[in-house]
Amino acid sequence: MIRVAVAGPRGRMGAMAVETLVTQRDMLLVGVLDRKMAEQASTIAGAVPIYTDMETLAIESKPDVLVELTTHESVYRHAQSAIKEGIRPVIGTSGLTPEEISHLEGLCRESGIGCIIAPNFSVGAALMMKFSAIASRFMPASEIIELHHDGKKDAPSGTAELTARMMADSKGPSGGKSTAGIPIHSVRLPGLLSHQEVLFGGEGQLLTLRHDSFSRQSYMSGIKLSVREVMKRNGLIYGLDKIIDDGQQPI
Amino acid sequence: MIRVAVAGPRGRMGAMAVETLVTQRDMLLVGVLDRKMAEQASTIAGAVPIYTDMETLAIESKPDVLVELTTHESVYRHAQSAIKEGIRPVIGTSGLTPEEISHLEGLCRESGIGCIIAPNFSVGAALMMKFSAIASRFMPASEIIELHHDGKKDAPSGTAELTARMMADSKGPSGGKSTAGIPIHSVRLPGLLSHQEVLFGGEGQLLTLRHDSFSRQSYMSGIKLSVREVMKRNGLIYGLDKIIDDGQQPI
Amino acid sequence: MIRVAVAGPRGRMGAMAVETLVTQRDMLLVGVLDRKMAEQASTIAGAVPIYTDMETLAIESKPDVLVELTTHESVYRHAQSAIKEGIRPVIGTSGLTPEEISHLEGLCRESGIGCIIAPNFSVGAALMMKFSAIASRFMPASEIIELHHDGKKDAPSGTAELTARMMADSKGPSGGKSTAGIPIHSVRLPGLLSHQEVLFGGEGQLLTLRHDSFSRQSYMSGIKLSVREVMKRNGLIYGLDKIIDDGQQPI
Amino acid sequence: MIRVAVAGPRGRMGAMAVETLVTQRDMLLVGVLDRKMAEQASTIAGAVPIYTDMETLAIESKPDVLVELTTHESVYRHAQSAIKEGIRPVIGTSGLTPEEISHLEGLCRESGIGCIIAPNFSVGAALMMKFSAIASRFMPASEIIELHHDGKKDAPSGTAELTARMMADSKGPSGGKSTAGIPIHSVRLPGLLSHQEVLFGGEGQLLTLRHDSFSRQSYMSGIKLSVREVMKRNGLIYGLDKIIDDGQQPI
Repeated sequence: MIRVAVAGPRGRMGAMAVETLVTQRDMLLVGVLDRKMAEQASTIAGAVPIYTDMETLAIESKPDVLVELTTHESVYRHAQSAIKEGIRPVIGTSGLTPEEISHLEGLCRESGIGCIIAPNFSVGAALMMKFSAIASRFMPASEIIELHHDGKKDAPSGTAELTARMMADSKGPSGGKSTAGIPIHSVRLPGLLSHQEVLFGGEGQLLTLRHDSFSRQSYMSGIKLSVREVMKRNGLIYGLDKIIDDGQQPI
Repeated sequence: MIRVAVAGPRGRMGAMAVETLVTQRDMLLVGVLDRKMAEQASTIAGAVPIYTDMETLAIESKPDVLVELTTHESVYRHAQSAIKEGIRPVIGTSGLTPEEISHLEGLCRESGIGCIIAPNFSVGAALMMKFSAIASRFMPASEIIELHHDGKKDAPSGTAELTARMMADSKGPSGGKSTAGIPIHSVRLPGLLSHQEVLFGGEGQLLTLRHDSFSRQSYMSGIKLSVREVMKRNGLIYGLDKIIDDGQQPI
Repeated sequence: MIRVAVAGPRGRMGAMAVETLVTQRDMLLVGVLDRKMAEQASTIAGAVPIYTDMETLAIESKPDVLVELTTHESVYRHAQSAIKEGIRPVIGTSGLTPEEISHLEGLCRESGIGCIIAPNFSVGAALMMKFSAIASRFMPASEIIELHHDGKKDAPSGTAELTARMMADSKGPSGGKSTAGIPIHSVRLPGLLSHQEVLFGGEGQLLTLRHDSFSRQSYMSGIKLSVREVMKRNGLIYGLDKIIDDGQQPI
Repeated sequence: MIRVAVAGPRGRMGAMAVETLVTQRDMLLVGVLDRKMAEQASTIAGAVPIYTDMETLAIESKPDVLVELTTHESVYRHAQSAIKEGIRPVIGTSGLTPEEISHLEGLCRESGIGCIIAPNFSVGAALMMKFSAIASRFMPASEIIELHHDGKKDAPSGTAELTARMMADSKGPSGGKSTAGIPIHSVRLPGLLSHQEVLFGGEGQLLTLRHDSFSRQSYMSGIKLSVREVMKRNGLIYGLDKIIDDGQQPI
């Protein structure tokens, strides 16, 4: 049984995480960390105790893992405290600086525990990006089509750009590590949610990798996976794709 | 420069392989192995010498790699001779028995050279199967849709069944190593060629891996890849998916 | 300006319809018909008056169109009253018997006004079905793939069956008016919403018609279309596909 | 039994048309029109007589329909002669000027017979374009993705541009008859053949119309359809989409 605490239980992601984690058979939600003794958090988490400071949470509820879903103002402080107490952080909050990440990495090494930072918790998106990187080595001619609702102002999407960068890096030195050769088409239509297709063309064939994200619920898969994985790993891991590998034990 | 010989240069795959390999900048077609001194083979291969026995081919043309695309009657004999002469076989011919494969494996180990056997040379299909196996560990709920022309009598297709088996194996003991949980839908329509889609559903998301094979030309990508890879490997490798891995150098 | 009233403003569809119709520039929401003077309805509709009987609504708010989204218990009574008062009904409520529909048809003819009954208000789904019926005349070899979340117990879906029936009818007597020749594949995966693909294979080609429904919001398009169309039509029209035709003026 | 003659039986399309038409149960290939008494034409058509001038063909073989697949130099002359002899032309050859088409239209009216001119004989492509035009009236927000092999130099494809124009025309005056609002994405990858996808987004939904052309064989469906339809029609019809309509009898 993995003892889990959630920081930020009243946010959109946090509330969903609490709801999801309490239903996992191999996990026990032992506490939530909130800025204040809010009624809503207690309702969400049922009988789960609410703490307003990290130290009391650590001492009283003894979690193995802290799922950190607060804001960029408190994430670094929470992560530091957690690692020092031997609690493994799973961090979805963005805003950590490279220096802070590097410092957390040092703390993990000293304590001999794991920490996972995931800018995007969608397992399907991570698989699509990972597979795209591998495929681009064998079928280098490729294009990306990303499709989003017409309310999305920026184009191309961050995921499409990250995918192109991972593909270019994967091709290696000879591939020039440039995303220049990978056209990105941005489709913006009302009604759409968040979709991406990566096409690889070769002699007489086409390989298509597609991910459709229909709701925020898709991030829960990555949080659950990360909680389980962070227990088995040492050191800091950045990106969900790093914990997806071929030799891994089934989950 | 990799020196390559092709056995079976007048078959459909063989003729296409000759045409393809002569255009590769890092390869030199040094000879073809045919049952007889056929005119057609000489036309296809241009100025490339034709041999009717393996020994003369080996001595005179000194190939590094033998691409074996004959029939089940001669493939074993050719492969044995090749390995003994230090020539690395790339075998697309089917019909080798498990005992013969095991014996070739021993010969490879003794000689310290590589050998690749690939029942299907389509790189895109191999990637789709490989990725499906990985994805099924993280998103176990999945279904396969394979689509072929209505002239195809068997259903499901061999590729769909192999994909399902690789996915079941990948899930591991807890997944029961059974393909029972993976429904396969077989679409048969006039006009279709050879297509397969593997769908993985999870919380709020869908991952789709699709391969379209438009012509036999798609097998050429795997033959070229195998010729290059067999030069870097030791021992016998069965299946194109085995040479597709994450840690590999770009090609 | 089309004067519109909504019956059933507190139901899921009704509340969404109220929200949608108040934002249409060519429509004026003049009243809602509810079983009781509920607070919620007044909140939803803002300053729009709430009525608990059809007659007062008709006299005081003088609507051109009644959007009927209540239950099978009151839909027939509401529709009858409306037509007698010269108000054109747009009916999304199911449960009308063939006799009731036939009687409403007679009332429409007498009054010389239009009435639209739509079991499914999704414009995209109606287009997919309509196009499938036409395409099946020219490319008779076809299969349907419908994909839904794994919580859906029945298979195939009602939409898939209706599509198959429309395709069989469209092929005409020689086609046997049988859906037997149209295989339906039902994919059930967690994470999926509501999706359908109709494939038509022919010599050297494939035509694919696909509809993805991501949310209940998709029904709003059909309600808006029906409100506009019912003003131009005479008589009773059953099915959104009937108002989608080639010769029609742009909307 | 429809008596059919083919002009241009040695061209790529012509040879395929001869092969296809001889296998139709409701058609009889009564002759071919060639520039010379070529051996190849006689081989292709089996026992079918070869003619080198239209007049002799008309008198001796008495065709109902002339399938015209020659070059822009002879198409106009052949079509004129045919109509004057009461033979209905089905024309796939491009290069007729607007004046020539207008003149042929007059001849058809005088003779009371039909004539079909089709710049593209693929039934699936015609359906996709026709449906796109209709759909754009109900779901105006749309984008086109056309995908072709990387040997195709021009972008966007002619079919994509024609589709966009048909969609803009269909939206009517208020839609501005401009294709400006319909983005076209051109994907160019090795291995691809000829594919097009038209996406229509609306509230909570997506409608996708896709056509894949895998081989020239796809044009045969339109030739067969045109031969049958030209027998039932009067006057000149330009474009396969014009003979695809809802009210039509099944074929």
